[in-house]
Amino acid sequence: MANFNFQLNKNDRAARRGKITTAHGTFETPAFMAVGTAATVKAVKPDDVRATGTECILSNTYHLMLRPGPERIEMLGGLHKFMNWDGPILTDSGGFQAMSLKKLSTVSEEGITFKSHIDGSKHSLTPEKTIEIQRMLNSDISMVLDECTSFPVPKEEAAQSMRLSMRWAQRSREAFTERKGYALFGIIQGGIYLDLRKQSLAELTSIGFDGYAIGGLAVGEGQKNMFSLVEKLGPLMPPEKPRYLMGVGKPEDLIGAVKRGIDMFDCVLPTRSGRTNQAFTRMGEVNLRNARHRSDSNPLDPHCICYTCQNFCRAYLHHLAITKEILGAVLLSQHNLHYYQELMCGMRKAIEAKEFSNFEAEFKSNYRTKR
Amino acid sequence: MANFNFQLNKNDRAARRGKITTAHGTFETPAFMAVGTAATVKAVKPDDVRATGTECILSNTYHLMLRPGPERIEMLGGLHKFMNWDGPILTDSGGFQAMSLKKLSTVSEEGITFKSHIDGSKHSLTPEKTIEIQRMLNSDISMVLDECTSFPVPKEEAAQSMRLSMRWAQRSREAFTERKGYALFGIIQGGIYLDLRKQSLAELTSIGFDGYAIGGLAVGEGQKNMFSLVEKLGPLMPPEKPRYLMGVGKPEDLIGAVKRGIDMFDCVLPTRSGRTNQAFTRMGEVNLRNARHRSDSNPLDPHCICYTCQNFCRAYLHHLAITKEILGAVLLSQHNLHYYQELMCGMRKAIEAKEFSNFEAEFKSNYRTKR
Repeated sequence: MANFNFQLNKNDRAARRGKITTAHGTFETPAFMAVGTAATVKAVKPDDVRATGTECILSNTYHLMLRPGPERIEMLGGLHKFMNWDGPILTDSGGFQAMSLKKLSTVSEEGITFKSHIDGSKHSLTPEKTIEIQRMLNSDISMVLDECTSFPVPKEEAAQSMRLSMRWAQRSREAFTERKGYALFGIIQGGIYLDLRKQSLAELTSIGFDGYAIGGLAVGEGQKNMFSLVEKLGPLMPPEKPRYLMGVGKPEDLIGAVKRGIDMFDCVLPTRSGRTNQAFTRMGEVNLRNARHRSDSNPLDPHCICYTCQNFCRAYLHHLAITKEILGAVLLSQHNLHYYQELMCGMRKAIEAKEFSNFEAEFKSNYRTKR
Repeated sequence: MANFNFQLNKNDRAARRGKITTAHGTFETPAFMAVGTAATVKAVKPDDVRATGTECILSNTYHLMLRPGPERIEMLGGLHKFMNWDGPILTDSGGFQAMSLKKLSTVSEEGITFKSHIDGSKHSLTPEKTIEIQRMLNSDISMVLDECTSFPVPKEEAAQSMRLSMRWAQRSREAFTERKGYALFGIIQGGIYLDLRKQSLAELTSIGFDGYAIGGLAVGEGQKNMFSLVEKLGPLMPPEKPRYLMGVGKPEDLIGAVKRGIDMFDCVLPTRSGRTNQAFTRMGEVNLRNARHRSDSNPLDPHCICYTCQNFCRAYLHHLAITKEILGAVLLSQHNLHYYQELMCGMRKAIEAKEFSNFEAEFKSNYRTKR
């Protein structure tokens, strides 16, 4: 088995073109990871996820620890086998989910205790425990436990929270057992405060991780603040390690973040939008419920080679949306993932050709956020 | 284009082995048609429907006339193109659905008037209109408009209803435009009263149809009554025309009806069960929500070659059921259709080998209705 590795091949200014090797194969970067929260990329079969160009998926420790439980997944041969995905899997630490159900959770130095959103049962998540769970899942890339602050938050609160996250990062690192092909990423916290973010990054690099994530963004701070932070943090991050912007984002967010040196993303948007009749196309976002698609014999995107666009017209997709047919969610989720992967592929090619600015300009001239 | 044709190749006592040719290709009989009510076999992509062994699908005139409307489907190139199914399609006449919403419909000599279950708008369905709609859909096999009585119903009521259906059958036949490869089936009515059924059959054969359906069964009369009627009607039906038992049924219903000379079936059971976490296997019916599957690393059916059984264990399907993930409906619907088509394939082979009794005995020794 190969070592976990990030190979940086090319760049175009700050934008980076690389490849990540894991225990379950490689994926090209910049990469978009499809979200498979409960061990399923919602509404899409693994073969079809693969057909969208997706190489790495993300799954959620919080959901899996509650159902079906890490012991069960381990006993059944690990997450890859359980959900029939033989490629790389990254798992988050569960911290974000446990925290986002604020009323149900409390934080101490030790970790997070929370009540299950399913049955109210009590659980706890410590740095050591999340690492152990992710090992049981057999996740290729594990994430440290972190505390995510909401937005806006006073600086002192952001600082205290960040310092706790750094102590948890240290404990996560110590709990993580090195195995060939497996990686542990640290998560930079500190809200929108650049100096806190810099401190956080410095602490993480002194601990040493296989990759560095920027957490706690895309929570309402706005694209401008996000880009500004990424732009300033990028040059300070170790160039030889992958950089992962968690939970981001819309197509324009991805382009702006890649431009500023990010290598990895995950977001529920393509699949969640697919389940709510929203589609992404080169021309922009499309609401399939809109009556103007009622008799439209054209595909969603005439240049798209996905299964949905090759086989169905907008009028049919509109019909599935209006009649609330499951097939609508299936076809749109698949198309949206394909759109996202095409976008990433376009960015990768643009970096190779050192034409990223052209790529961005062309995207902006074609893409309308609502049409 | 070939003529519509029923080729009867072999038989084993009353059981028949044949092939039907339509404007959109052929299908082997005895055949099970997957139900695609609103121009979609619920939760299954057309390619995957094909992969289950399904050769012919059924779609519902009632649903399609309300949404998206026959004019729209015709304008978009017909139902085959609209839903991306290039094989044979049979459409029912809409009578059953319009009637089954009893409170919203009234029947006259002219036809059925009803209120839409969607928006309460008023619609009517006459024999002429349902034939016209089915032509606009470009259905390979159209059905006459009929009135379905509920069960139980007094004989005089059943008789009056049947006579009305026969007048409608005559008008449907007159309204139907002969086109090469396209067919019109008559529907035998008369409740559970054999003499009424015989009268109905005699009237239909004197009008002359491309096939004969038995309607108004599987509405609560019980398997024994159904088999008894089918057994007595079979020998009276024109042997050179296909026989279609509408809306049937469970695996044991299909076997018993094929044994008594039926060639075609449709039923929502495999897909509806798939959406409610029920699976059909050689060993019987399986409820995936049952906790005993929680840690089961075996597939649903170890001998099944469908996508679901080849790639996922029961524990995973249980997990999808418990978490109410769309993928659960997708995988189980596909498996159940595959099971039904395997069952039909087994019956076809058994008839060819004149071993149908053995087939039936083996089925009964393996199959448990709940396990």
